[in-house]
Amino acid sequence: MEDFIKIVLSRPSHPANIGAAARAIKVMGFKKLVLVKPKIFPHPEANVLASGASDILNSALIFDELSSAVCEETLVYGLTARSRHFPLPVLTPREAANEIVLNPQKTALVFGSENGGLLNKEIDICHKIVTIQTGDIYSSLNLAHAVSICLHELRVILATNPKINKLGNPHRQPISEIIKLADHLLEVMEEVDFLKNRKLEYTRTRLLNLFKRSIREASEIKMLRGFLTAVQKRNL
Amino acid sequence: MEDFIKIVLSRPSHPANIGAAARAIKVMGFKKLVLVKPKIFPHPEANVLASGASDILNSALIFDELSSAVCEETLVYGLTARSRHFPLPVLTPREAANEIVLNPQKTALVFGSENGGLLNKEIDICHKIVTIQTGDIYSSLNLAHAVSICLHELRVILATNPKINKLGNPHRQPISEIIKLADHLLEVMEEVDFLKNRKLEYTRTRLLNLFKRSIREASEIKMLRGFLTAVQKRNL
Repeated sequence: MEDFIKIVLSRPSHPANIGAAARAIKVMGFKKLVLVKPKIFPHPEANVLASGASDILNSALIFDELSSAVCEETLVYGLTARSRHFPLPVLTPREAANEIVLNPQKTALVFGSENGGLLNKEIDICHKIVTIQTGDIYSSLNLAHAVSICLHELRVILATNPKINKLGNPHRQPISEIIKLADHLLEVMEEVDFLKNRKLEYTRTRLLNLFKRSIREASEIKMLRGFLTAVQKRNL
Repeated sequence: MEDFIKIVLSRPSHPANIGAAARAIKVMGFKKLVLVKPKIFPHPEANVLASGASDILNSALIFDELSSAVCEETLVYGLTARSRHFPLPVLTPREAANEIVLNPQKTALVFGSENGGLLNKEIDICHKIVTIQTGDIYSSLNLAHAVSICLHELRVILATNPKINKLGNPHRQPISEIIKLADHLLEVMEEVDFLKNRKLEYTRTRLLNLFKRSIREASEIKMLRGFLTAVQKRNL
């Protein structure tokens, strides 16, 4: 089970937080740290804070784009503070942990930058939002603490469940295929001059949300993209 | 409810962890940070890590002894890693949080030093042990992360419970009264030459555990100490 879970830090600013997150990952029995455009990395401070988890730090994969970092995942959770609203399901870490264990997928937990969290375009490629409950007065949770809290929730539920070593039946296609479909449709929309006054980014977000929610089978993507290609050939 | 909970860091080594713990306390909606013999405090690094929680840091109370720090508390939880064994109930943070909310007491969560956790003499004055679940390979959880995880458990359960503003019926007497009773008995044991080859510290631990477990009423303490005083008068 632990092998199916990626912890993705997108644009982390402080190497200390990267190190502390690596330590939290190892302490909670997980393995995979992924970094997207870290501001400063590697850095001695990351190593100091990682303490006994330098293996996690040294094997961290680094990407330039979140979409590349999670291209294989069929379930992507984005962590955000509670103040924002998105047209996505919002879960607590405990609800997400239950969901993950019930039907194990290749899953990514994506944590945004210390300064402002996830960008809208990053949330566009998340299936669901996870919001950690805090008190009412001050909700600025440290990045690595957020990692610890989420992974502790998973650890607790894994402790009461028998060993889970197999991926379940994926409800979804890998997020990279969803993105390709949305971008293909967007391309055709432009070609047939449909977009006009519509904002490109806004339309892209809506298409992504529609397809993340609806697409289940690879054959559905194949059919829709075949249709789009047919339209494009006609328009040449 | 939040007012009944003290977060006690005993002998913390790193000012950064004190600051990070203060931030975790504020984020999770709690207020009371107590320090016992901090190695270095105050320190600029504590302030940096506290971020928006400098009020928690500035109002932290500092004591020389754990027994003074928790003298009013009727329920004291000691956090330890899972490897050690004590004759005390061992709970997960979730079980402790449930217990606290069911019957609110003046409660302390006591976290030991980064290097080795709580000392045996500190555990002697805890009613129960709390152990955070971790993976099997590496269980060295950062001190401030441990604070975050425990307080998050409380926050989650408080979110699903109506506002709790009153202390419940205390099951126990303040730990300071228990300590006085045990030490009084120990004093008499010495006076009547009962201790002989018995190790003082070991006997003290056993007496504390006995009284922590058994004493419920102030009148029980009064009766026992009255008896001890009577023995002492006779022995003059």
